[in-house]
Amino acid sequence: MYNFGANYILYMNQNNYCIIMAGGVGSRFWPVSRKNNPKQFLDILGTGKSFIRHTYERFTEIIPPENFYVVTNKIYKQLVKEHIPELNDTQILSEPLGRNTAPCIAYAAYKINKLNPDASMVVAPSDHLVLNEPEFRHVIAEGFDFARSNEVLVTIGIKPNRPDTGYGYIQIDSSVKTGDFHKVKTFTEKPTLEVAKMFIDSGEFFWNSGIFIWRTSEIIKQFRSHLTEVHTRFDSITESYNTDGEEESINKIYPECRNISIDYGIMEKADNVYVRCSEFGWSDIGTWGSIYQHSVKDDNGNAVTGDVLEYDTEGCIINMPKGKIAVIQGMKDFIIVDSSDALLICPKDDEQNIRMYIEEVKMKKGPDYI
Amino acid sequence: MYNFGANYILYMNQNNYCIIMAGGVGSRFWPVSRKNNPKQFLDILGTGKSFIRHTYERFTEIIPPENFYVVTNKIYKQLVKEHIPELNDTQILSEPLGRNTAPCIAYAAYKINKLNPDASMVVAPSDHLVLNEPEFRHVIAEGFDFARSNEVLVTIGIKPNRPDTGYGYIQIDSSVKTGDFHKVKTFTEKPTLEVAKMFIDSGEFFWNSGIFIWRTSEIIKQFRSHLTEVHTRFDSITESYNTDGEEESINKIYPECRNISIDYGIMEKADNVYVRCSEFGWSDIGTWGSIYQHSVKDDNGNAVTGDVLEYDTEGCIINMPKGKIAVIQGMKDFIIVDSSDALLICPKDDEQNIRMYIEEVKMKKGPDYI
Repeated sequence: MYNFGANYILYMNQNNYCIIMAGGVGSRFWPVSRKNNPKQFLDILGTGKSFIRHTYERFTEIIPPENFYVVTNKIYKQLVKEHIPELNDTQILSEPLGRNTAPCIAYAAYKINKLNPDASMVVAPSDHLVLNEPEFRHVIAEGFDFARSNEVLVTIGIKPNRPDTGYGYIQIDSSVKTGDFHKVKTFTEKPTLEVAKMFIDSGEFFWNSGIFIWRTSEIIKQFRSHLTEVHTRFDSITESYNTDGEEESINKIYPECRNISIDYGIMEKADNVYVRCSEFGWSDIGTWGSIYQHSVKDDNGNAVTGDVLEYDTEGCIINMPKGKIAVIQGMKDFIIVDSSDALLICPKDDEQNIRMYIEEVKMKKGPDYI
Repeated sequence: MYNFGANYILYMNQNNYCIIMAGGVGSRFWPVSRKNNPKQFLDILGTGKSFIRHTYERFTEIIPPENFYVVTNKIYKQLVKEHIPELNDTQILSEPLGRNTAPCIAYAAYKINKLNPDASMVVAPSDHLVLNEPEFRHVIAEGFDFARSNEVLVTIGIKPNRPDTGYGYIQIDSSVKTGDFHKVKTFTEKPTLEVAKMFIDSGEFFWNSGIFIWRTSEIIKQFRSHLTEVHTRFDSITESYNTDGEEESINKIYPECRNISIDYGIMEKADNVYVRCSEFGWSDIGTWGSIYQHSVKDDNGNAVTGDVLEYDTEGCIINMPKGKIAVIQGMKDFIIVDSSDALLICPKDDEQNIRMYIEEVKMKKGPDYI
């Protein structure tokens, strides 16, 4: 039992489950983030723990240990075990290939629902930053209560502090509200700066954190309505969940599923979506710019990981591997990232080019460097 | 017997010896050049062979194989053997510590003179570039002839093509000339740009290549006159040269010798120095700038070694280790050098800072990085 203030008492409910999504390849952080060791397994901010480890620990106070599940690509199963040794093998769900968030969430929901028809689940990306973890847990616990007491899908919205064009936005219907939970009016993908400014000014828009809470029975109902072909496939293998045949069944139906996000496939279509408007120091750490923003800067405004001697160098993100030193002179506002077999030097303002660079590296130098 | 044109016939004279000086640490090319693998053992220009290998091969047509000697620091003895496997152990002279060129040359001269009192020797640095090797051999062969027929010290002067402030200059006495050999009037260390321009305009000045030719008996005579304390020490161990006791004797006297260059200790003082004014495409490759100058540049004017994808990058020297790739955007006129455990990024114009950086690296990060 934990007391989060304001007379809010949290019980560790045995029906609450946590699903951590950890199948991404994090290509924007190349060359540090690599196909065989992507962002969620890295400690790019130099905190001492990987993103996925932080994500797991963020929930351990409110989720029973046996109720954690990590869904990941089969090639990362071993990495997940290394970063979260508390998990046993049955708690790591292997995707034979990436199919975006809808099939990933369906897999966890159908499997858990068979185990426990009263289950509720929080779904969280494995590579985000949360600064105020007590407040985060408070929000998640409220979300569980709300989702359990109502036939709703809950999404966590973040109060925006700037017109960021890298995030999706959720518009609330301010006339329909239950406590801190607002009915959702619209979802909008990454807007232009103009539009983002209007969103902020209106006070009706929140960042879409990609964190969701619902009862497994409720999300399954929604799959049946809005992603029928996904429902049919995951429903057809109900027999095999939590048996030795599960992996084989999943390997069979997964490639047949559409590559589709839960936002596009369900959240934008369901009419019972509520957003919990929150502030807990959140970032998806989607760019080197956000790494820079959340890092401790030295006297010259450089965010440095590793052993670096700087001369006349300002506003840079410098990331060196362990045991290697750098001497850097005359750089302003650059990303300088060294990994064992690849070096990236690129102006901070041009980091959107990194995806293109990766394609070119793959084409010209081969897949080993990706 | 080789014909170098102009009716010049060269015999491979058994009294001609070649001394390659290979004890330097090449700190200006950090982090590629390291204390345990300095410049002379590297192929910074990407020619397929190290500088010392090129130096050796440059002389093999005119020097009998058993007449080569390499003087190096004892820590590089193994490296010398790897790069010039043709040498046997007695042909590698180990200095217990670096004492500049005068003791290094004295060691070889006194040792060889005991073996063969009729010996003449060419002394050459191990880390220079020569583009026109036939012309080089022609010059050296002429130098041997001149030094054998006259009681002189011969130094090889290079016709300057620009007012370089990184070289020493030799002024000729245009009134005293034998064939292509001019009496030397003065030696000048690195001049200012103003002075260097005057030197060039006068037509009387040549770059000091640091390549010398003389009879061993003649240079010993000069040591006796101008570096008496060096003479006394090397003369005192005459018994031990070419015996099992040589190394022990050298280890004893070497630390007692002054750290002094042959230029300062003898060439500037002797009155029988002649310069052979030459043009054979020479550079001491003393700076990254000279590497840039002598490298093949790509379409963007970058001198690249290794696998590099460039975007909006011009006039750079980029040096990546084998098996590593780099993606570089938005760099102009920089030196970017990566080695296994150190990375250097520095504007080309500021490369004189590298020595200072090395000192700071040594102090702050320890000697392993030097």
